[in-house]
Amino acid sequence: MSDFGEEIYGFRNARLATMTGDSGYGLIDGYVIWDEDQILHIGKDIPDQFKNAEITDLEGRLVTPGLIDCHTHLVYAGSRAKEFEMRLEGKSYAEIATAGGGIVNTVSATRAASEDELLTQTLARLDNLLAEGVTTVEVKSGYGLDEATEHKMLTVARELEHNRLVNIQTTYLGAHAIPKGMTADDYIDDVCIPALRSAHEKHLVDAVDGFCETIGFTPAQIARVFDAAKDLGLPIKLHAEQLSDQGGAQLAAKYNALSADHLEYISDAGIADMVEAGVVAGILPGAFYFLGETQKPPIEKFRAASVPMAVATDSNPGSSPMTSILLAMNMAATLFGLTPEECLRGVTVNAAWALGLTDCGRLAPGLRADLAVWDVEHPAELTYRMGDAPLHRRIFGGIPC
Amino acid sequence: MSDFGEEIYGFRNARLATMTGDSGYGLIDGYVIWDEDQILHIGKDIPDQFKNAEITDLEGRLVTPGLIDCHTHLVYAGSRAKEFEMRLEGKSYAEIATAGGGIVNTVSATRAASEDELLTQTLARLDNLLAEGVTTVEVKSGYGLDEATEHKMLTVARELEHNRLVNIQTTYLGAHAIPKGMTADDYIDDVCIPALRSAHEKHLVDAVDGFCETIGFTPAQIARVFDAAKDLGLPIKLHAEQLSDQGGAQLAAKYNALSADHLEYISDAGIADMVEAGVVAGILPGAFYFLGETQKPPIEKFRAASVPMAVATDSNPGSSPMTSILLAMNMAATLFGLTPEECLRGVTVNAAWALGLTDCGRLAPGLRADLAVWDVEHPAELTYRMGDAPLHRRIFGGIPC
Repeated sequence: MSDFGEEIYGFRNARLATMTGDSGYGLIDGYVIWDEDQILHIGKDIPDQFKNAEITDLEGRLVTPGLIDCHTHLVYAGSRAKEFEMRLEGKSYAEIATAGGGIVNTVSATRAASEDELLTQTLARLDNLLAEGVTTVEVKSGYGLDEATEHKMLTVARELEHNRLVNIQTTYLGAHAIPKGMTADDYIDDVCIPALRSAHEKHLVDAVDGFCETIGFTPAQIARVFDAAKDLGLPIKLHAEQLSDQGGAQLAAKYNALSADHLEYISDAGIADMVEAGVVAGILPGAFYFLGETQKPPIEKFRAASVPMAVATDSNPGSSPMTSILLAMNMAATLFGLTPEECLRGVTVNAAWALGLTDCGRLAPGLRADLAVWDVEHPAELTYRMGDAPLHRRIFGGIPC
Repeated sequence: MSDFGEEIYGFRNARLATMTGDSGYGLIDGYVIWDEDQILHIGKDIPDQFKNAEITDLEGRLVTPGLIDCHTHLVYAGSRAKEFEMRLEGKSYAEIATAGGGIVNTVSATRAASEDELLTQTLARLDNLLAEGVTTVEVKSGYGLDEATEHKMLTVARELEHNRLVNIQTTYLGAHAIPKGMTADDYIDDVCIPALRSAHEKHLVDAVDGFCETIGFTPAQIARVFDAAKDLGLPIKLHAEQLSDQGGAQLAAKYNALSADHLEYISDAGIADMVEAGVVAGILPGAFYFLGETQKPPIEKFRAASVPMAVATDSNPGSSPMTSILLAMNMAATLFGLTPEECLRGVTVNAAWALGLTDCGRLAPGLRADLAVWDVEHPAELTYRMGDAPLHRRIFGGIPC
């Protein structure tokens, strides 16, 4: 498959987890046929018209949709390892802050970094995800907190697509933290919203997110950002109820958000509103684990209400320095009780939904040929293993990587 | 460095975490010089006699001792992913057992597997560890529970060294579980101890371990195995106080064990005996995490009593399907509160101690040239990151891998 061109390609003896249908893996043993534009055929047999396709025997290997990491803060500079060490050595919050710890550290480093430096550091993280069969990654801004740096982050996110075979979805998260020397209200009105508008003009923004929390922004402040997003025709996402119930889920539902993420402290009313508005629940076990939290998101209630659950790494230097989507799946199962099937749906069909994408996350004719081929027999293996990425091959847009 | 022979090699501009001294990373910025036999020099400068060595510029990269995974059950056949899935789907213990779940599953698969099949499956797991800078791995038997299969497992463990550049330490764990159709006493006396003696005759055994637990063996039964080990001159290790306090730590201390591992339920008396006998505490967060346990090992007491702590993957299909030593370090920090320094000591100097090895686990002249070179600046990075193995290069016995 090295001379990839206008040809038609395929796998035989594949175990296909199509992820179609409302539940289950949608397993089919047989063929998947594709060209560069789309998947052409899935089935037990191969129709005559594809008999001349270049077919590879997978010897029973599992094929899933290319995985989708639908919530990351992958673009940033610097490291917070030293702060992590100080915390474990028993240093106080004040000592850590004095030593330059916290999000301020990442904002300073990200402002200071050149576009090239940011890109290089981010590609190293992205490569970890790609080595696990990821084909689509959402990437947020939010460590700039000024127009130039927010734009720089989004530009670097876009640049990732020119350096690797991957689909990047950018999310503007200007409302991530309050920069020093400003009130939250002034920051929202004078920096965050104008920078969103100018970023949109440069075609840098696919969606808009905010951090609705006592240590972030109020629902009223977030609503002003969402109104601006709505004006620009951009879809909405929200960091909601991670550390307390702020009514963020209701706010997200009101704006028909694609997803509300974290949700450890969501109320029953919040769940009801999400169901009504069709908002995906973004399950992010990495931060729960890394911060030593104890309040889990109400998985049983999401299940009962048929709220679709996505699973993501939340890759970021402060609360989830994780670059493994398979580990996020294992944590979602081990810490929150999601089934392996829910975990795989969470990084495929539901993750696509959480990004508003309809052309990926499942294996079906007409969808993008984004595939992950695994050296395992059963899809549950992907969630069960810890620290092992049994990827055999990744196919992105029909192209073997 | 491709034509490796009788030459002398070295790194300059290296940040060396020597792990010498009683605490700290023992950081030295400068040179490490070695040949195939041993490390020849560590220091800020390079003595004249090594000026002709073939020196590579590391540009400030971190060098640690090659990592040591001192507690694994790496050799086994089959997978328990399906059982993991059934558990998360809410199936009862009885349903899982009926479907062939539990350790019985692994014992059956391991008995049925050929030596070649076992080797192939194990090498895939080993390769994950090697990709993280591991140069020494302890491997236990214990899924045979009959003489032939216990020997087969130990033979495969020895075979790993002929297939990869790695040092394997074998541990006989016949006293792992009670095979169907036998009493624990009969199994210990009629199978476990005779199979130990015959395995020792074949030079298959470097140490002897047991599982002292209500669902395993009593201290009296383990003591009989330890007496046999003592007769053969073999060192002792023990799975102790993982799920309850059985006085295993005291038993381990009485036999001057190299290590007692797990220790979630250890008593103060057990700690005192371990200190007295110089027994290393094996910290195994993988099983704690995977099984959803809540009782943590008493790290603060180990620290106060200066009990050396080793950290390992405990890689096994039932309670810790983990093949990442870096993830074990992260879990030891995140879940149990070990500092990054304690985690790195736990997979280097203290892990060597837990295996009775004096020629590795530190960087000093006269020790083996087992090195891991990392694309990071600070050693805390190795514990901080999740799902990322920033290995630049591994050197095993002086040989670049």
